[in-house]
Amino acid sequence: MGMRPVYLDHNATTPVDPEVFDAMLPFLRTEFGNPSSAHALGRRAHEAVERARGEVAAAIGADADEIVFTSGGTEASNLAIRGVAKAERRRHKIVTSAIEHPATEACCALLAGEGMEILRVPPEKNGRLDPARFARAVDETTALVTIIHAQNEIGTIQPVAEIAAIARKQGARVHADAAQSLGKIALNVRALGVDFLSIAGHKLYAPKGVGALYLRRGAELPPLLVGAGQEAGQRPGTENVAFIVALGAACRITAAKVREERERLAALAGQLFAALKLKVPGIVLVGEGAERLPNTLNVLFPQVSGRRLLERCTNVLASTGSACHADREDPSAILTALGIPADAALGAVRLSLGRGTAREDVEAAAADLAAAWRALAANATASV
Amino acid sequence: MGMRPVYLDHNATTPVDPEVFDAMLPFLRTEFGNPSSAHALGRRAHEAVERARGEVAAAIGADADEIVFTSGGTEASNLAIRGVAKAERRRHKIVTSAIEHPATEACCALLAGEGMEILRVPPEKNGRLDPARFARAVDETTALVTIIHAQNEIGTIQPVAEIAAIARKQGARVHADAAQSLGKIALNVRALGVDFLSIAGHKLYAPKGVGALYLRRGAELPPLLVGAGQEAGQRPGTENVAFIVALGAACRITAAKVREERERLAALAGQLFAALKLKVPGIVLVGEGAERLPNTLNVLFPQVSGRRLLERCTNVLASTGSACHADREDPSAILTALGIPADAALGAVRLSLGRGTAREDVEAAAADLAAAWRALAANATASV
Repeated sequence: MGMRPVYLDHNATTPVDPEVFDAMLPFLRTEFGNPSSAHALGRRAHEAVERARGEVAAAIGADADEIVFTSGGTEASNLAIRGVAKAERRRHKIVTSAIEHPATEACCALLAGEGMEILRVPPEKNGRLDPARFARAVDETTALVTIIHAQNEIGTIQPVAEIAAIARKQGARVHADAAQSLGKIALNVRALGVDFLSIAGHKLYAPKGVGALYLRRGAELPPLLVGAGQEAGQRPGTENVAFIVALGAACRITAAKVREERERLAALAGQLFAALKLKVPGIVLVGEGAERLPNTLNVLFPQVSGRRLLERCTNVLASTGSACHADREDPSAILTALGIPADAALGAVRLSLGRGTAREDVEAAAADLAAAWRALAANATASV
Repeated sequence: MGMRPVYLDHNATTPVDPEVFDAMLPFLRTEFGNPSSAHALGRRAHEAVERARGEVAAAIGADADEIVFTSGGTEASNLAIRGVAKAERRRHKIVTSAIEHPATEACCALLAGEGMEILRVPPEKNGRLDPARFARAVDETTALVTIIHAQNEIGTIQPVAEIAAIARKQGARVHADAAQSLGKIALNVRALGVDFLSIAGHKLYAPKGVGALYLRRGAELPPLLVGAGQEAGQRPGTENVAFIVALGAACRITAAKVREERERLAALAGQLFAALKLKVPGIVLVGEGAERLPNTLNVLFPQVSGRRLLERCTNVLASTGSACHADREDPSAILTALGIPADAALGAVRLSLGRGTAREDVEAAAADLAAAWRALAANATASV
């Protein structure tokens, strides 16, 4: 099977867009100045960083001085969540959800150990967070509400604007993790009404190792790292100039393409699920009916392990949400939070499409996945 | 003067070595997998990260499992210094020097605000730290001794091994900042006897945005960031695969070339200073007589401002150590710590050579610097 495998793991990471690559390339070669250097080479690096800051800001409806570059989404979320907790003197509660990315969940767990009260709002059965539950959870003791804008495993888009309005009414600050949403759907920080927003470059066709935090003007945070004065003291350390330029270019491209690409990907994903449904009786689409990312299908294959299905189906590169240990497989914590029983959850496969996914890829993937499923399911039936 | 400017600012940042560039290039293109993904593309990214870890370890005489990748030297130093302080229950003192990099100094200042006692040992007049002073400063209340291995502005190489032995005798842990030394001189963490060592990729011909911390096996630290389990939980966040591969390649090249390159650069630097001495009467080499990096000359031009000298001399890209504010110029804190008077310190220019520096560059730079100095000094004399 000498075929090029079909990459359907864009929620794990994306390839670098060729236009992004071209934009950053000079900064890995001749334009290698340190932005802190006063000479011409340094000044050009500094200008490139500032240009990128404007591009990131423009993609999310912010101003350039509200963008802090980081090493990625995890650092951005640590900066926001732990920063609020560190600066907070009176309010002791953080309201979050039970379906957060590990970066947010780990920050909350750490802060719980330091005496903060963490309230994890459970999702509805379809993966959506209900603002009414947040209205009951958030009160005048709440320092921060932190929610994932689009859930990475199941793709559900959360009603961040509604939840943020509830939080603001109680004087709580709001952080949204947009690592998965930016680039897949249009977003605007003013419309969302958030104070902080985490961005991860490698989910939107920039390289791994760069991200940004939107910090609403006036919503100050203590820095996570200290050092020389880069990023206005908010994030010291010599700037990753090349990848910052890449993130700027990726945001510029995304801002231009996102609406058209959203439609294209939603159509392809619809086609993929329709093909699977035809060939795999009993297959379930997680979060069906809820507003979801256009590119993400989390499907439950009946009777088989999603991990073993993907191992067999080497022409499709995708992932399961399950944590794999040496001797046993645990169902995804996210699917478990949705009330999906362990045996069904172990059949999960996340298929996440992207800019490079074409109609033929979707057809090939559906055929491969279905063939692998038939073989495994037949074995499962035979061995019962 | 249509000449290519001579880059003598390698201590600020280095260009990416072409061999380093070639090594990382596939990871910015086709090999874009997330090391956490179980499929073939992910596994190859994981293997590349682990190969790089071995290369970094080998360059400093460590084992691979003692290397944690970070976003740079500043993060590595924050992880070590603040980690020790966070984990410490009884010892309340940190002993450091008065000539540290801002990353170390800012960590110490932050910890002073949190109740740690910070003792800053002053340097000798030639920039060397005297172990005897550390022997008096370090006691059984000392949690950490943190020192810069090679000073970034003046190039002095510090007697880390002697100071570390003193610290260990008192049960204190030792961190060395090797951001400037690695790649310029051979170093071995076992011979130095340190628990932690900071590495910055962009000082050794890898790109800006990657670094590493050597963490001696058994010398555990709480993480600075929390999230998913990358880097054995010590530094979560999706790995910067391309730049980690670059850092590995840079360390491999450095390990092979450092001895030969040290001699070559020392000869060129000697030639440069000899030429300047001939043309600029009264020029002073800071740290003369102390063991110094082969590539670094911090020279004091008499009667002129180093900043204005460099502004005039646009064919030489170098830096001063002075902090430039809108309306006034402050002398370098490092030169001030050496007891150099402000008017002399304002004449400082740091000339730092590198892998791309050739004999002709040094000759051209000396001629340009001397010509600019003559013009400025003549004006200075005329205007008196």
